[in-house]
Amino acid sequence: MNTYLEKAKVLIEALPYIQRFNRKIIVVKYGGSAMVDEELKRSVIQDVTLLKLVGFKPIIVHGGGKEISRWVSKVGMEPKFINGLRVTDKETMEIAEMVLGKVGKSLVQLVEGLGVKAVSLSGKDGGLLKVEKKYSKGEDIGFVGEITDVDPQILYDLLEKDFLPIVCPVGLDKDFNTYNINADDAACAIARAVNAEKLAFLTDIEGVRRDPEDPKSLISELHVKEARELIANGNIGGGMLPKLNNCIDAIENGVSRVHILDGRIAHCLLLEIFTNKGIGTAILGEGEENYYDGK
Amino acid sequence: MNTYLEKAKVLIEALPYIQRFNRKIIVVKYGGSAMVDEELKRSVIQDVTLLKLVGFKPIIVHGGGKEISRWVSKVGMEPKFINGLRVTDKETMEIAEMVLGKVGKSLVQLVEGLGVKAVSLSGKDGGLLKVEKKYSKGEDIGFVGEITDVDPQILYDLLEKDFLPIVCPVGLDKDFNTYNINADDAACAIARAVNAEKLAFLTDIEGVRRDPEDPKSLISELHVKEARELIANGNIGGGMLPKLNNCIDAIENGVSRVHILDGRIAHCLLLEIFTNKGIGTAILGEGEENYYDGK
Amino acid sequence: MNTYLEKAKVLIEALPYIQRFNRKIIVVKYGGSAMVDEELKRSVIQDVTLLKLVGFKPIIVHGGGKEISRWVSKVGMEPKFINGLRVTDKETMEIAEMVLGKVGKSLVQLVEGLGVKAVSLSGKDGGLLKVEKKYSKGEDIGFVGEITDVDPQILYDLLEKDFLPIVCPVGLDKDFNTYNINADDAACAIARAVNAEKLAFLTDIEGVRRDPEDPKSLISELHVKEARELIANGNIGGGMLPKLNNCIDAIENGVSRVHILDGRIAHCLLLEIFTNKGIGTAILGEGEENYYDGK
Amino acid sequence: MNTYLEKAKVLIEALPYIQRFNRKIIVVKYGGSAMVDEELKRSVIQDVTLLKLVGFKPIIVHGGGKEISRWVSKVGMEPKFINGLRVTDKETMEIAEMVLGKVGKSLVQLVEGLGVKAVSLSGKDGGLLKVEKKYSKGEDIGFVGEITDVDPQILYDLLEKDFLPIVCPVGLDKDFNTYNINADDAACAIARAVNAEKLAFLTDIEGVRRDPEDPKSLISELHVKEARELIANGNIGGGMLPKLNNCIDAIENGVSRVHILDGRIAHCLLLEIFTNKGIGTAILGEGEENYYDGK
Amino acid sequence: MNTYLEKAKVLIEALPYIQRFNRKIIVVKYGGSAMVDEELKRSVIQDVTLLKLVGFKPIIVHGGGKEISRWVSKVGMEPKFINGLRVTDKETMEIAEMVLGKVGKSLVQLVEGLGVKAVSLSGKDGGLLKVEKKYSKGEDIGFVGEITDVDPQILYDLLEKDFLPIVCPVGLDKDFNTYNINADDAACAIARAVNAEKLAFLTDIEGVRRDPEDPKSLISELHVKEARELIANGNIGGGMLPKLNNCIDAIENGVSRVHILDGRIAHCLLLEIFTNKGIGTAILGEGEENYYDGK
Amino acid sequence: MNTYLEKAKVLIEALPYIQRFNRKIIVVKYGGSAMVDEELKRSVIQDVTLLKLVGFKPIIVHGGGKEISRWVSKVGMEPKFINGLRVTDKETMEIAEMVLGKVGKSLVQLVEGLGVKAVSLSGKDGGLLKVEKKYSKGEDIGFVGEITDVDPQILYDLLEKDFLPIVCPVGLDKDFNTYNINADDAACAIARAVNAEKLAFLTDIEGVRRDPEDPKSLISELHVKEARELIANGNIGGGMLPKLNNCIDAIENGVSRVHILDGRIAHCLLLEIFTNKGIGTAILGEGEENYYDGK
Repeated sequence: MNTYLEKAKVLIEALPYIQRFNRKIIVVKYGGSAMVDEELKRSVIQDVTLLKLVGFKPIIVHGGGKEISRWVSKVGMEPKFINGLRVTDKETMEIAEMVLGKVGKSLVQLVEGLGVKAVSLSGKDGGLLKVEKKYSKGEDIGFVGEITDVDPQILYDLLEKDFLPIVCPVGLDKDFNTYNINADDAACAIARAVNAEKLAFLTDIEGVRRDPEDPKSLISELHVKEARELIANGNIGGGMLPKLNNCIDAIENGVSRVHILDGRIAHCLLLEIFTNKGIGTAILGEGEENYYDGK
Repeated sequence: MNTYLEKAKVLIEALPYIQRFNRKIIVVKYGGSAMVDEELKRSVIQDVTLLKLVGFKPIIVHGGGKEISRWVSKVGMEPKFINGLRVTDKETMEIAEMVLGKVGKSLVQLVEGLGVKAVSLSGKDGGLLKVEKKYSKGEDIGFVGEITDVDPQILYDLLEKDFLPIVCPVGLDKDFNTYNINADDAACAIARAVNAEKLAFLTDIEGVRRDPEDPKSLISELHVKEARELIANGNIGGGMLPKLNNCIDAIENGVSRVHILDGRIAHCLLLEIFTNKGIGTAILGEGEENYYDGK
Repeated sequence: MNTYLEKAKVLIEALPYIQRFNRKIIVVKYGGSAMVDEELKRSVIQDVTLLKLVGFKPIIVHGGGKEISRWVSKVGMEPKFINGLRVTDKETMEIAEMVLGKVGKSLVQLVEGLGVKAVSLSGKDGGLLKVEKKYSKGEDIGFVGEITDVDPQILYDLLEKDFLPIVCPVGLDKDFNTYNINADDAACAIARAVNAEKLAFLTDIEGVRRDPEDPKSLISELHVKEARELIANGNIGGGMLPKLNNCIDAIENGVSRVHILDGRIAHCLLLEIFTNKGIGTAILGEGEENYYDGK
Repeated sequence: MNTYLEKAKVLIEALPYIQRFNRKIIVVKYGGSAMVDEELKRSVIQDVTLLKLVGFKPIIVHGGGKEISRWVSKVGMEPKFINGLRVTDKETMEIAEMVLGKVGKSLVQLVEGLGVKAVSLSGKDGGLLKVEKKYSKGEDIGFVGEITDVDPQILYDLLEKDFLPIVCPVGLDKDFNTYNINADDAACAIARAVNAEKLAFLTDIEGVRRDPEDPKSLISELHVKEARELIANGNIGGGMLPKLNNCIDAIENGVSRVHILDGRIAHCLLLEIFTNKGIGTAILGEGEENYYDGK
Repeated sequence: MNTYLEKAKVLIEALPYIQRFNRKIIVVKYGGSAMVDEELKRSVIQDVTLLKLVGFKPIIVHGGGKEISRWVSKVGMEPKFINGLRVTDKETMEIAEMVLGKVGKSLVQLVEGLGVKAVSLSGKDGGLLKVEKKYSKGEDIGFVGEITDVDPQILYDLLEKDFLPIVCPVGLDKDFNTYNINADDAACAIARAVNAEKLAFLTDIEGVRRDPEDPKSLISELHVKEARELIANGNIGGGMLPKLNNCIDAIENGVSRVHILDGRIAHCLLLEIFTNKGIGTAILGEGEENYYDGK
Repeated sequence: MNTYLEKAKVLIEALPYIQRFNRKIIVVKYGGSAMVDEELKRSVIQDVTLLKLVGFKPIIVHGGGKEISRWVSKVGMEPKFINGLRVTDKETMEIAEMVLGKVGKSLVQLVEGLGVKAVSLSGKDGGLLKVEKKYSKGEDIGFVGEITDVDPQILYDLLEKDFLPIVCPVGLDKDFNTYNINADDAACAIARAVNAEKLAFLTDIEGVRRDPEDPKSLISELHVKEARELIANGNIGGGMLPKLNNCIDAIENGVSRVHILDGRIAHCLLLEIFTNKGIGTAILGEGEENYYDGK
């Protein structure tokens, strides 16, 4: 009986968080290890499906990660590079779009296996993501796009009809050409457009460190102002820099809270939302309190 | 970390049950010890509120229990009895109505303290419960009513507007006189009228026993047919007999499953719904399987 | 035939007033003699029900009046006083809530007897009335609350679903404790929150007098500015002062017209609304004309 | 004061009837003297507008009466007759349509003068009335149509949007030619199509007599069965025969009650609906009771 | 086959225009030759019906033209004149209203013959057009009204319910007297009130000329500023002056584009909307581009 | 001018067909040459987009055709065959799904380029298509599925929200494995599930021939009964047999009319729907008339 009672207590502990996020939109950027490891994959899908069932409105934005590279080499294509960046020529774009589509459908499959109706989209569907060509230091790196406009209508319509939308970062420019988009950017732009309550990035790191070299300097809460200072002081480097800029951007455009979660931890999403065990780093606007402390 | 992961797993285990009862109406007859013990009271309210938040549509039907007797004696009234039954004269009815109203508001208070909007009603509000006078072996026992009609519109309206309805068993006859109603009967009539998915009685017993004298003969699942046989064989007695008849009546009128739960166990509602640990006795229709076993 | 024709003419005369208040919210503060005298009680309920049926949206706010005192003494409690004010300790509050609930249900009963569906609420239901503790000259007088917030959603929902809401003045503070509220204050706060077209107080006086001592100085129309002057000049005293302040407050917060009616006159509500015979005193905003005169 | 109280009582007496017909459709066939006498005209319009305002859903169906004849002679046309019936040739039809249109707009004008929005239609609008040519004993009497189909959508739409529909009896055949229709027939067909609660004919007689010659034999209530017998026995003659047949037809097709009212009595509609003074003859289905007697 | 393919291409060419005006309101002032010539009449009705079916929301506003004069003389009335203007006395107004009603119903007939539901209204219906008396140089010319207020609710309601509204220019003053209104003015006022995308006048001229005497000076596009200059320079005269003022007024009050079309050309409406062949003169606001040129 | 007038006439001729199919669902099976030839592709998309804009509700169901084979060989896979049928092993299925996804998105792109919002789905999205494994003469040919259930909710939801749904024939079995489905079967099953008015197959043949060898024996209209006879007599062979069976199946399950169109003719869809030039073969139910002949 004790065990059962413990279980009931866990559910009861979730009550205030369920109440807090009831009918709120939560954008989950899904990528990294959590997309490769089958166990982690299942745990992410379970988490998101649970969030959906208890009344949240999650939207998944996913990349294609290593799967794209795998298929590019599978068809024997030669990668080209400019400034160290892979050039997305027409053929690469075609493969990327195919792989991203496949990944989206496989997520639909997993979600529906848990009894929730899902629909996978690219940014083309319903005119969701409009882009313009992006250059790297002025050089043409092919069909890589920067988001200029988000039309969230299709997302609102699917949420209203109780579907779980799953989006891959492909968009059209004004001449209706296809472009690849950085998945973090897409998640951030969508979170802004739908005024998400929360934006969570599943990453392969523990979170933001005050000192990149010191694992003990992990920051569990970071106000936008501090984040800017860390950037200004050069303490943030590598792949974290654009991600953190995205977080700041999201916060300043109406998203209440952004999380950089360690996607290598099973159920990190649930842990973050339903327990007071902070996973990774939460980015907050000025004057925001940690709601796990007070009321 | 382990503990946290355990918690996440508990939540994940709840997924299929949350999905199963999504937007289903669950009528909870709240009474007995669970209404007296403050700890149990809180656990029931937490359970019902959680059910509401994760997408179920609970309706509470409550009695006033010992509180009515307490107030009757408080004002120094002399109880009258016929056939061993307390006679509900006009003054007693007045007190009963007042006490039931107060109990309802106190439940509203507890539910709203957990962040969910509730409304407490009597069967008078919105013409919910219509009754006619009930006699005991032909003798007048005062304002004790038998339900003749349920108009569930007010319940549907409140559920649609996302309130948690809390109902006390008082109704009007066709001349608009006030009557007291047995709370079990009211819960059953309401469950039938709204086609509830589940009707759960919180009681002060462990469940139905095959042999009333033998605690080991507790039945965890009982098909209507067997229930009838137990009654026919005289194995069911005392207060259990009308309750079991109510259960059979509910099942035969569209309620999918009725539970006689041991309200003395904290969180018995959650345990029953979210775990495969059966609490008390489930009454099933013919051909119904225990959904915790198979798919 | 003549009599019948006269009747038809009376109905026809009501036409412009019915048209004027079609779908407008009218808050009726119900109290005083009209709550005690059975004949007057029936006349008020008939009036409000008629208003409902011809397309107005009335909301009743009622007190418990002498009934509360009667029950307090019935249970043999000793009243305590501070500054001449009765102290509402926990037990008194409990009785007050019970009595107010009973009164509300009795009004539901009368309204439903006339064929209209009603629902009685306290300010706890749907989180309608939020209060904070009120002190008398700095001294604690117990659970007497001042309204800090009104959430009119439950009222809008019930009106939309065609119920007649009946509200008693009990509310919760931020820690979910129960408080008694002055019924006039509650009526005024609710009228403001729902932007009522009209707020009518049923009182035991003829109306506002220019000279409290002179019955002939009854004022049938009073602009807010004059009302303020009367108060400044000390011409308004006793129980009328807070009531008149409430009226001014309501007018200044969007209620179009407030009436202090003589509740001792049968059908005073209908007379006020459907005839050009002014009953009591109407409080008007600046620039408002008496609509019974002109178009 | 007495007078005022009397007025209030009249309004209160109307309560049960207002409640009874709340949101019910009432078709009023408007014609005869009540269309000519200005005083009666105003009284009919007042009655219908009042019915609309207190929550009924009236639809007026009107003829053009003597006004058509007046305009036919005004333009100097020679009337042609067959079997004693006026032949509606193309030109006559044109004038009839114009006059009926004008009458409709003049009713709109009167209704809107009382503050209710009205829309006047012919049976052409929204395809309301479809007809086929009607012959008199096999002979062609021109553009006189018999209703074959009613599409009540435009009426439902206008009622939903809170307009008072006013219909004149002109329709189209399947080749979209214009036909005149008997106004009684049109009222009856529309009442059937919208499942009206009541159909009232304003006529120039006192009602149905058991003996056409004996004014004292006026029948105030007539069950369909008796009506048939009266017809079979030849007791019903002249203009009353088709009218009574229309009444029987309406009752048998879902209209609850049909009234033949004496339109020469001011406010006969209100008197019929709001008092127990029967005006004219009520035709009832089998088993229907006079609701003014009992409950 | 070639012919068929050509047909398909014509339909495909219409695609961008259909898309452009999807669900937009287009007010068509219907008058002049197009109302007299049966062939042109049919072509206008076909055009408007097609616009309705492909998703536009057309509203027709029509005059009665020569038909009114014809009926005035038919009844042998003597025309009176003041300042060279016909005086609309009560009798003339009566005939005008009848004729306009008849014209409206005949248009309903034609539209419904093409399978679309229509409703013809005057400005009295639903209180659509409110007017005040208009004087000619200070002299009373009878029941000629100037629009003071438009209540477009009935138009929105009919459009929502998928009817095609057909309006004739008759309105009521504040005392509910009937007035005739200039049809161009009515069309313009309605276009403004419903924020029409387009307002098209079917006229008996080719369009606006830079030099009234020179047919070659036809202007196909005219910005408001230029229009004002033409008027200031006295280049616009006769019947064109009020029409052009109406156009300017419409553009300045939210109508996107106004067209003065040559109603003597069959299908001028379709040609204007679906081809890049300009018919007549388009009046544009400042900064508006001709959308047939660019995108 | 003549040319323009001709154009207007073509649009006017389309009127009855636009009216006929207004708000009707039309399922278009898109495949064959029309998917390969860029010119034809554009013409199909233009046709479907036009249908959408003029008020029809088209749904596209497409295959992947030769593109799948191209990609299978591109990644150097060895095709396996059983009974002459390609075996769809897991890897082939993966490629098929990717290619079908890509094709869907490219159609979205084309439709949105014409100004209409589209969403491409597979049968996984929203649980649209449920399948079970299909065997070829008892032998396992891999992930080839037969449709067992269609849940059209996502299609209704997208149509309601005004999107054009584009579906590729991939589905899930009860264990949530991915299967390829014959596109004709998918189109037919969807047409049945949504009660489509029309189902049109774009094929690479002229239509059904009475004698497969004789081009002159093309049948333009075929009643179900005759179709069955042709099959029974062995006159239908090759790829036409299953297609014709699908047609019969669709007609017998509520689809009003099925068309086998020659997709090699530009704008064959428009020609079929908007002209009386029959393209290919129409399959009709018993008693259905060719609506291009009669009314």
